[in-house]
Amino acid sequence: MRTTQYLLGTLKENPANAEVVSHQLMLRAGMVRRVAAGLYTWTPTGLKVLRKVEQIVREEMAAAGALEILMPMVQPADLWQESGRWEDYGPELLRLKDRHQREFVLGPTHEEVISELVRKEISSYKQLPMNLFQIQTKFRDEIRPRFGVMRSREFIMKDAYSFHTSDACLEKTYQAMYDAYTRIFTRLGLNFRPVIADTGSIGGDMSHEFHVLASSGEDAIAFSTESDYAANVELAEAVAPSTPRDEATQELNKQATPNVKTIDDLVSQFNVAIEQTVKTLIVHGTDDHGEPTLVALVIRGDHSLNEIKAAKIKGVLSPLVFATEEEIQAAVGAGPGSLGPVGLKLRTIVDRSAAVLSDFVTGANDDGYHYFGVNWERDAACTEVEDLRDVVEGDPSPCGKGTVRIARGIEVGHIFQLGTTYSDAMKVSVLNESGKSQNLAMGCYGIGVSRIVAAAIEQHHDDKGIIWPEATAPFQVCILPMNMHKSVRVKEVAENLYSELQAAGFDVLFDDRKERPGVMFADMELVGVPHTIVIGERNLDEKAVEYTARNSSEKVKMPIEDVVSYLKGL
Amino acid sequence: MRTTQYLLGTLKENPANAEVVSHQLMLRAGMVRRVAAGLYTWTPTGLKVLRKVEQIVREEMAAAGALEILMPMVQPADLWQESGRWEDYGPELLRLKDRHQREFVLGPTHEEVISELVRKEISSYKQLPMNLFQIQTKFRDEIRPRFGVMRSREFIMKDAYSFHTSDACLEKTYQAMYDAYTRIFTRLGLNFRPVIADTGSIGGDMSHEFHVLASSGEDAIAFSTESDYAANVELAEAVAPSTPRDEATQELNKQATPNVKTIDDLVSQFNVAIEQTVKTLIVHGTDDHGEPTLVALVIRGDHSLNEIKAAKIKGVLSPLVFATEEEIQAAVGAGPGSLGPVGLKLRTIVDRSAAVLSDFVTGANDDGYHYFGVNWERDAACTEVEDLRDVVEGDPSPCGKGTVRIARGIEVGHIFQLGTTYSDAMKVSVLNESGKSQNLAMGCYGIGVSRIVAAAIEQHHDDKGIIWPEATAPFQVCILPMNMHKSVRVKEVAENLYSELQAAGFDVLFDDRKERPGVMFADMELVGVPHTIVIGERNLDEKAVEYTARNSSEKVKMPIEDVVSYLKGL
Repeated sequence: MRTTQYLLGTLKENPANAEVVSHQLMLRAGMVRRVAAGLYTWTPTGLKVLRKVEQIVREEMAAAGALEILMPMVQPADLWQESGRWEDYGPELLRLKDRHQREFVLGPTHEEVISELVRKEISSYKQLPMNLFQIQTKFRDEIRPRFGVMRSREFIMKDAYSFHTSDACLEKTYQAMYDAYTRIFTRLGLNFRPVIADTGSIGGDMSHEFHVLASSGEDAIAFSTESDYAANVELAEAVAPSTPRDEATQELNKQATPNVKTIDDLVSQFNVAIEQTVKTLIVHGTDDHGEPTLVALVIRGDHSLNEIKAAKIKGVLSPLVFATEEEIQAAVGAGPGSLGPVGLKLRTIVDRSAAVLSDFVTGANDDGYHYFGVNWERDAACTEVEDLRDVVEGDPSPCGKGTVRIARGIEVGHIFQLGTTYSDAMKVSVLNESGKSQNLAMGCYGIGVSRIVAAAIEQHHDDKGIIWPEATAPFQVCILPMNMHKSVRVKEVAENLYSELQAAGFDVLFDDRKERPGVMFADMELVGVPHTIVIGERNLDEKAVEYTARNSSEKVKMPIEDVVSYLKGL
Repeated sequence: MRTTQYLLGTLKENPANAEVVSHQLMLRAGMVRRVAAGLYTWTPTGLKVLRKVEQIVREEMAAAGALEILMPMVQPADLWQESGRWEDYGPELLRLKDRHQREFVLGPTHEEVISELVRKEISSYKQLPMNLFQIQTKFRDEIRPRFGVMRSREFIMKDAYSFHTSDACLEKTYQAMYDAYTRIFTRLGLNFRPVIADTGSIGGDMSHEFHVLASSGEDAIAFSTESDYAANVELAEAVAPSTPRDEATQELNKQATPNVKTIDDLVSQFNVAIEQTVKTLIVHGTDDHGEPTLVALVIRGDHSLNEIKAAKIKGVLSPLVFATEEEIQAAVGAGPGSLGPVGLKLRTIVDRSAAVLSDFVTGANDDGYHYFGVNWERDAACTEVEDLRDVVEGDPSPCGKGTVRIARGIEVGHIFQLGTTYSDAMKVSVLNESGKSQNLAMGCYGIGVSRIVAAAIEQHHDDKGIIWPEATAPFQVCILPMNMHKSVRVKEVAENLYSELQAAGFDVLFDDRKERPGVMFADMELVGVPHTIVIGERNLDEKAVEYTARNSSEKVKMPIEDVVSYLKGL
């Protein structure tokens, strides 16, 4: 491709309102343009990358036995009413009416449409298992679209759905998808982690997210220093301390703490270690008779509450609802900053790490006072102990090996064992080997195809621009002729090399613009072409050109006739 | 692909509500499934064909210098308000609101979005011409979606838009697109015609449709027996008769025709040739002062009025509005079945073929009476003569060579020279060579990618199923082993041949089902795989298999080891 016949669209300046690096670089490198909030046009350079990602995904899905189909973006409401998600799905589901006032949705996902297809097409266990996928445009009406294509409203996803007569069969396909995803992200040249994940609102039994590791990632991932274990921090277990609780050595001692509003105040004013403090949080729940009640959650002062874990405890409202200051005053007679388990007349659940403390400090349920030298059993009951907190770096790994490290990740894939949730709701059944009707076990497997492009950039860039992995580079090689419009010799060598490289099967960008060398270098570094051949008068006396790799600053002078074989060898 | 691991989805019976052959066969061959009115899922066999069509379109567009991009399906209303089409576009434009009550449309076409892109990206004539295309999902809210993917609501289109600083440059790209389309439809193995077309509501100066010829086509195309001339019948000129009007030989003679309600009644009851009759149609128009008036249109009894031609005449309402029976009675004093030019007190426009008649028959503007022996000038004025009728077979061709034939066509492509219509409305301008701002000339070029699949079937099928052209066949070869589950030998040969053909690069369907031979043959003929290898016990004694081509009934016995080279040779 000649630059003069191409829509390069590079920008010198960082555009306003682009917060993350990938969004900035995708705009600056001419990959996308904004049409409206969360809606983008993929310009030629961006689309080339997107298509390469799609192709790798397609090949590996097919190699894993999945069959490609294409479902519509506009879906009839009645299917969503049947699954129950017409009511349950929030405003991210864009509902619309056609000219006849019939209701439809813009598909954010396709469980309903695929269930409708499979219940009509598949009647016998003999046709199973079956795994169907599509690479298709989806729409989610994000309340605040941001980060460019990372969280856009219209986006491209690979979604696959598998159907089975047994959980064992589902588990086998799930593993095949896990393996295919591993191959896909490996081929894409990404540093990624499969992560045990919460199944969330989509339901089901087992789930892994695939995260591209990048400091800008929205998710925190806990992984082991010594094994493959990785889990979303939302889900990673904070294992129970292996050492028992120490004996009490101090008397219970109530002190005035008039200027203490926070744990930090307590630590700094009273010279206590933060690990020797606990904080008490009050949330809504129900008692054994189903009546509304309040529940106290106690965690160590230096830990943070994991709301997902807490909400899973019986008798605690899910999702978690915190008591208001008024509700706390009414129930305890003190403000939220003065709470503690001593003498507390509420159901009290203690985090595992808080439960092994002795001689600790806590609010006295009396504004302006704290208890020091508190000990469980003697001063406060400790009958319910649970995992309530987020893991932190240095915790023992839940897998039993090594300790926990925490990294940021961008979710680019998610696989689920859904079980029969949708099959039950939508009556997706076949006759099994015994001739009986059986609802099918279902798996679903998503990859954020357009998001991968942004994630790859988050992981592969420097201050000059993008550094594409070979597999997804928009062009493999670029030819930069220096002042070609003044030098017949440079032009001739450049044109010849362009033809030669094209003939050898390379996807080449030939920068034939009348631009200063500095502009050309800056553009190619910004776009991130992996290999650059610079043709200048100086080297031509020796019949040589200069090669540079985007991921290196080294300049390699080589004879013109060696270029093709050198690039082929890389 | 093994049939047992595939979603073949063939149906024995013609599905209800599938009117045209392609719709029936696409359902029966397991290519698509209906999700709702005008919304389809492309199942594996259908999608394979669709992707092959897409790829050919993509390659030829790129070869013609167009750059691929991808614009969003959901488009902001403000762009449509700017172009004026928010008001002008009918209910086929699906309007919707997002969660913030902002207005959007589901894109039926992308002139607005591309204009917005180009006016931001292109600032200088040096960057032009530029031709941008996408292969993308569109939505048109058809009032009555039908014929399967032929007239669906969600469909895949290739749309391209070119931008130019001069009409000459636009014409050059237009010709390049004309040529690319010709290559595309040729590679697709389709019998097609480029046809001069009406620019219709999209506006502009020049337009060609590309039609796949098929008896089920919705459009009538007039083409020359002796040249490349082809035009939509809507547009094809009915050239003026070259022979002058004969002299009058009869007296004007008013006769009672009490039982004549139609031209056919007249012909059968009074022994007149239909070519010697005229009919008179009354439409609404405006007079020289812009006041509403009625206008009479006179055409030969055997001809049909071309409403598009009539509506283009000055003083005639466009689109054409026929006068009601009451309006005719009030103006003429007779019913619509008794009208004629003799003594008619309305502006009268006479078709070229009617204008050369002499001694003809017409209504007497008196119910129950006709005039016989009518002659122009003597009995009725003939001051305005226009081309008012549809061409018919046998007419001289408007190109001057040969005569007109009429064929049915399915429109699969349409190219337009739009001129500056959109550029003026949306201010798409650049600085030209003189440094002045200039609105760009624009071309647009569409191909109905999903419709092509149906059109190919309309043209290539027999009573057993589809007969795919090689370029778009879902599989190139199928292997049909007879009773493989009872014969180790058949199974072994079939498996080996399957591996061999795959290794040789063929896309093979291996029918490994436990089905009777009749079922297997019927399915493969229905799906339309071009080449079939039948492996049976009988021929294996001679180490032979049987080859058949889908488009022939001949059976060719050949040694097993010759199969790969034979297929490669085809």
